[in-house]
Amino acid sequence: MTIEPLPPGATVGIVGGGQLGRMMAQAAAKIGLKASIFAPDAESPAFEVSAFQHCAAYDDGAALERFAREADAVTYEFENIPSAALAIIEQHSRLAPNRRAMEVSQDRIEERRFLDGLELPCAPYAEVHGKDDLESAWRALTAGNPDTLLFLKRARYGYDGKGQMRIKGAGDLAAARGWLGGGDALLEKGIEFAFEFSILCVRDDRGKMLFYDPPRNIHDDGILRESIVPAPLPDDVMRTAKNTAGEIASALGYVGVLAVEMFAEKRNGGLGAVINEIAPRVHNSGHWTADACTVGQFENHIRAVAGWPLGSTERHSDARMVNLLGEEAHGWQTLLEDNPSRSLTLYGKKDAMNGRKMGHYVDLMPKT
Amino acid sequence: MTIEPLPPGATVGIVGGGQLGRMMAQAAAKIGLKASIFAPDAESPAFEVSAFQHCAAYDDGAALERFAREADAVTYEFENIPSAALAIIEQHSRLAPNRRAMEVSQDRIEERRFLDGLELPCAPYAEVHGKDDLESAWRALTAGNPDTLLFLKRARYGYDGKGQMRIKGAGDLAAARGWLGGGDALLEKGIEFAFEFSILCVRDDRGKMLFYDPPRNIHDDGILRESIVPAPLPDDVMRTAKNTAGEIASALGYVGVLAVEMFAEKRNGGLGAVINEIAPRVHNSGHWTADACTVGQFENHIRAVAGWPLGSTERHSDARMVNLLGEEAHGWQTLLEDNPSRSLTLYGKKDAMNGRKMGHYVDLMPKT
Repeated sequence: MTIEPLPPGATVGIVGGGQLGRMMAQAAAKIGLKASIFAPDAESPAFEVSAFQHCAAYDDGAALERFAREADAVTYEFENIPSAALAIIEQHSRLAPNRRAMEVSQDRIEERRFLDGLELPCAPYAEVHGKDDLESAWRALTAGNPDTLLFLKRARYGYDGKGQMRIKGAGDLAAARGWLGGGDALLEKGIEFAFEFSILCVRDDRGKMLFYDPPRNIHDDGILRESIVPAPLPDDVMRTAKNTAGEIASALGYVGVLAVEMFAEKRNGGLGAVINEIAPRVHNSGHWTADACTVGQFENHIRAVAGWPLGSTERHSDARMVNLLGEEAHGWQTLLEDNPSRSLTLYGKKDAMNGRKMGHYVDLMPKT
Repeated sequence: MTIEPLPPGATVGIVGGGQLGRMMAQAAAKIGLKASIFAPDAESPAFEVSAFQHCAAYDDGAALERFAREADAVTYEFENIPSAALAIIEQHSRLAPNRRAMEVSQDRIEERRFLDGLELPCAPYAEVHGKDDLESAWRALTAGNPDTLLFLKRARYGYDGKGQMRIKGAGDLAAARGWLGGGDALLEKGIEFAFEFSILCVRDDRGKMLFYDPPRNIHDDGILRESIVPAPLPDDVMRTAKNTAGEIASALGYVGVLAVEMFAEKRNGGLGAVINEIAPRVHNSGHWTADACTVGQFENHIRAVAGWPLGSTERHSDARMVNLLGEEAHGWQTLLEDNPSRSLTLYGKKDAMNGRKMGHYVDLMPKT
């Protein structure tokens, strides 16, 4: 499907008003498009940098329709939007990425079935539909090695390490049963990895794809702390990883920025690429692209959604992105004094709650 | 004077709602500050990217006071604001750059007297107070060479080549008398220059100064068309030019980005730096800094105004900035297709009137 490019002055609707929506709105404004934000929280950070604001709940059909009618194209900032909301929007505007992309990535079981269908490399897993499935799934995956490290991940509404639990040994099963209750989940084998990384790919409506250099990602307690480019990935692993992301994007008929989180799995003294999860949106591990590339992920996402020519994803600098969580953001002054080649982004959030993403900084270094 | 840094979430007021105000507002939002725009035109491009909007005339004292009281610091986007408006603002908020900087640069005669006081190099000139001064000023400057190229520049409200007239020979004097009427003007000797360039300097409240690499500027009919870095300036001329800008900024007790437009004058087979004019604000010839430097002019201006640590003005790429005037902006699609390493900025203006600045693009190239 090729789409008519939006003219400058057209309106791009963004569902979600957090920092990703905010940075997308700013990218839209840079290229002369008007941003319209739909978000339930009146204090959404994206409202104050956008031309139009729609403050309503995700199940407010009339508000969704008004928002969609006003927008010449609509995108979204996160994958936990009710699919029914997107169904209303796509009746009245052009939606990208499409609803299928969101549905696949908002449910870990759906996602895994989709990736299996493409025969793409993931960690060994078993589906768990309620607590009574748990023990047999555990037996199947541990295969006689009860100490095997497993992760039980709720099928839906997990992010930043939320909605998952570590299982190491039969002794953890009782707690896991209680934690899971009747919900659906994925039981997954822990991967022995050298490091984590992500592929950020942007695909336009004609199927053209560009890739940013993959960053190495450092998580702490499930939350991304740092992304560093370049990552120490051998060329062949990098190629495989990009192909993997490309296959996912093509299979979904994807338009916009797609992030694929991966493990650099240790294999016979070398490394291999294993998918962790996919995110149908701009991604925290790509924030450095706004500072270190000609055209960053936010602008390229908007360009794709608007049917515009994509910009170069080439990197002019090495970069290290560090998230500022909770009260860490209060140290902004020292952070800027410490390194003048530091680009700071703060999200305009009021309450520095524990672990809340308040901003990030990017240190730029000459390209190696 | 050192100032208390504004905390994230504070409000920066910006007088003027054009593209410079718009890009300053976006830079403020990037670092977590709220932008508040004061502008008389309801369709001001800066309104749609800012948290607060004040649409009122520059002589509406009550509106100016409301705006100033709401803002924790105030800056401005252009030098043709009535000084009386700034006088009201500075009673209720912190103003930077200060009123003196604006007064000096909004009147060419004031500006020249100020620069003379600092013994800084300008073109030879004479003050003209009404048409009856014209002939004696012309005689003094031509000094027996009636073909000497001169420029008659109205003292106030000139920009983009407006408000000036070329005089070459006694035959132009009658027309010049009619054009000038009773106004004040500067009669200035044309400089024989190799090219034009500008110095962009940012100064914080403690007197710390940083300089961007000076771009070579190409004008057409008085309007800036291109700015290219690096400029072919010998090291000693560059040093002198930076010192000149630094002296101006220090003498004014300046806080923020200051632009000094200069001629690379041809001198005995070499080059010298001569001041053309100063602009107490972010400047069109510095737009490339947002794409080619760690911290661009808009963010550094806001950082200075907010009392924040300045960011590095270092350049990671070579760059060529091209203004899009009037209908040239309609070619955005081809412009983006022609070069993926092109960063496009459109200002969100509705009417592509002839010669109106609608946007610009920056081509990035590896640093030489």
